[in-house]
Amino acid sequence: MATTTNSTNPTTASTLTPVTVIGLGAMGQALAGAFLKAGHPTTIWNRSPGKGEDLVARGATRAATPAEAVRAGEVVVVCVVDYEASQSILEPIAADLAGRVLVNVTSDAPERAREAGEWAAEHDIAYLDGAVMIPTVMIGTPDALLFYSGDKAAYDKHEGLLKSLGGQSAYVGADHGLAAVYDLSMLDFFWTSMSGLVHGYALAAKDGVPAASIAPFLKSHISLLSLLVEETAKNLDEGAYPGAEANLAMEVEGIEHILHAAERRGLDVSVLRGVRDVAQRAVDLGHGADSWSATVEGARNPA
Amino acid sequence: MATTTNSTNPTTASTLTPVTVIGLGAMGQALAGAFLKAGHPTTIWNRSPGKGEDLVARGATRAATPAEAVRAGEVVVVCVVDYEASQSILEPIAADLAGRVLVNVTSDAPERAREAGEWAAEHDIAYLDGAVMIPTVMIGTPDALLFYSGDKAAYDKHEGLLKSLGGQSAYVGADHGLAAVYDLSMLDFFWTSMSGLVHGYALAAKDGVPAASIAPFLKSHISLLSLLVEETAKNLDEGAYPGAEANLAMEVEGIEHILHAAERRGLDVSVLRGVRDVAQRAVDLGHGADSWSATVEGARNPA
Repeated sequence: MATTTNSTNPTTASTLTPVTVIGLGAMGQALAGAFLKAGHPTTIWNRSPGKGEDLVARGATRAATPAEAVRAGEVVVVCVVDYEASQSILEPIAADLAGRVLVNVTSDAPERAREAGEWAAEHDIAYLDGAVMIPTVMIGTPDALLFYSGDKAAYDKHEGLLKSLGGQSAYVGADHGLAAVYDLSMLDFFWTSMSGLVHGYALAAKDGVPAASIAPFLKSHISLLSLLVEETAKNLDEGAYPGAEANLAMEVEGIEHILHAAERRGLDVSVLRGVRDVAQRAVDLGHGADSWSATVEGARNPA
Repeated sequence: MATTTNSTNPTTASTLTPVTVIGLGAMGQALAGAFLKAGHPTTIWNRSPGKGEDLVARGATRAATPAEAVRAGEVVVVCVVDYEASQSILEPIAADLAGRVLVNVTSDAPERAREAGEWAAEHDIAYLDGAVMIPTVMIGTPDALLFYSGDKAAYDKHEGLLKSLGGQSAYVGADHGLAAVYDLSMLDFFWTSMSGLVHGYALAAKDGVPAASIAPFLKSHISLLSLLVEETAKNLDEGAYPGAEANLAMEVEGIEHILHAAERRGLDVSVLRGVRDVAQRAVDLGHGADSWSATVEGARNPA
């Protein structure tokens, strides 16, 4: 089947790979749709029936059982709710998976990805763990970012197929847990930032300032964040936090101002209190004259 | 003195304004330096001696007393540690300030700026409260952002002078507290984001991933933040948080994953716990199917 041609994509025929997608939630459907669009022969399966009718209409083959689905694919992509769900599907059909490439993009902890990697090795399955960093609407676009970790030979062989899901696909290492580590690290930054965004707007609203009045000015702070992403990384990797003109002790005072203003206005301050406490602990550990990067010492030493 | 020419800036002679800077910490020195560079006759004063020698060398006049300093300036800019410090300097010389424009860029709470505004009104002083949003090295550049609030006529008259401190200077309203409100709101976002950045890196480091390996991928998240700044503002101002494909309940589950991974790795999770609790409270208030913007309901209703 690897050389099956597809009338709508004759020029890419030589790189086509039969692929199976297990799990047809919104993300699974988007993944299968991107494979179809790239011309790969695509087989689908979902535990509950009735999902993926439009994929079948677009040329996907619906398998009757997980085993049948797996046997149709050189690469098997699993996208379900968590590893418990994926293992409950995969364990009974381990023998069918043997010799194939399993790509699990189910979101879970790095530890679970490592366990799945050990299980796959025991069953002669080439295993890649994946993390999808973008919403379903971006799947299949050149800017879409997905991380993969685990079997490097499998990634290298199927990079073209995997890049049909997102042009920015990146292999981040042999440790199967790494895709999840990158995922968690980036989402830690993202959700904490989104929390600060909403809280900052809520603070201004208490004094009658609409969020739309603040928004245009945040562009400069976002540019600054963009610069500090690199500088902070350098500081942390070197374990040195040289303070310039501003220093952590001054910055903690600034955060106290924000915290008190928010508290006086009746807003929740649990996030700001955490930010303040971690930074203050770094000051107490002797980093008062260092840069903000030194707050990592507070983060590494919980109260 | 308003028409004094300056040999180095003959073309701008007609817009020159005698200006006084009180407080010569790093920021006060940068402000005075920018005024001098733009050719404005600049008088300086600092409580403790020995500061600003290079400003004098560049043409600044050092006043012997605050009263003498104030009498030399049509506009008086104060940059000291807090409003207590500024009022201790200004109250004894209120009569000298009468009829002049006072610009206080000291960082403090909106309430303190409003009190200072009332005090200034009682003494016939045109008062602008300012907030400097950029580090000293950026003072005087076209990209530098400073906020001003209070006496609009004074701002309009001296906009040229004030823009010599930063090209992005913005007047945000008659309420003297507003410059501080904008400042606090933006720094709330900024410091919370910086906390998430350091914590995200610390999380990856626990699994052996250097921050420098994560940093390049954060660009896409920062672009996403940039888009969400506008969308979140719209949601909050309208009080409607339409959920798209992702919803708050799912996002809270994602944050639980990050929190547990960080906790298992021995990191402080006080910030993440705050982020989770606020979002969970919004879910409990009925916003589980809404977008992240709905977390504002959790922020407005502390536990």
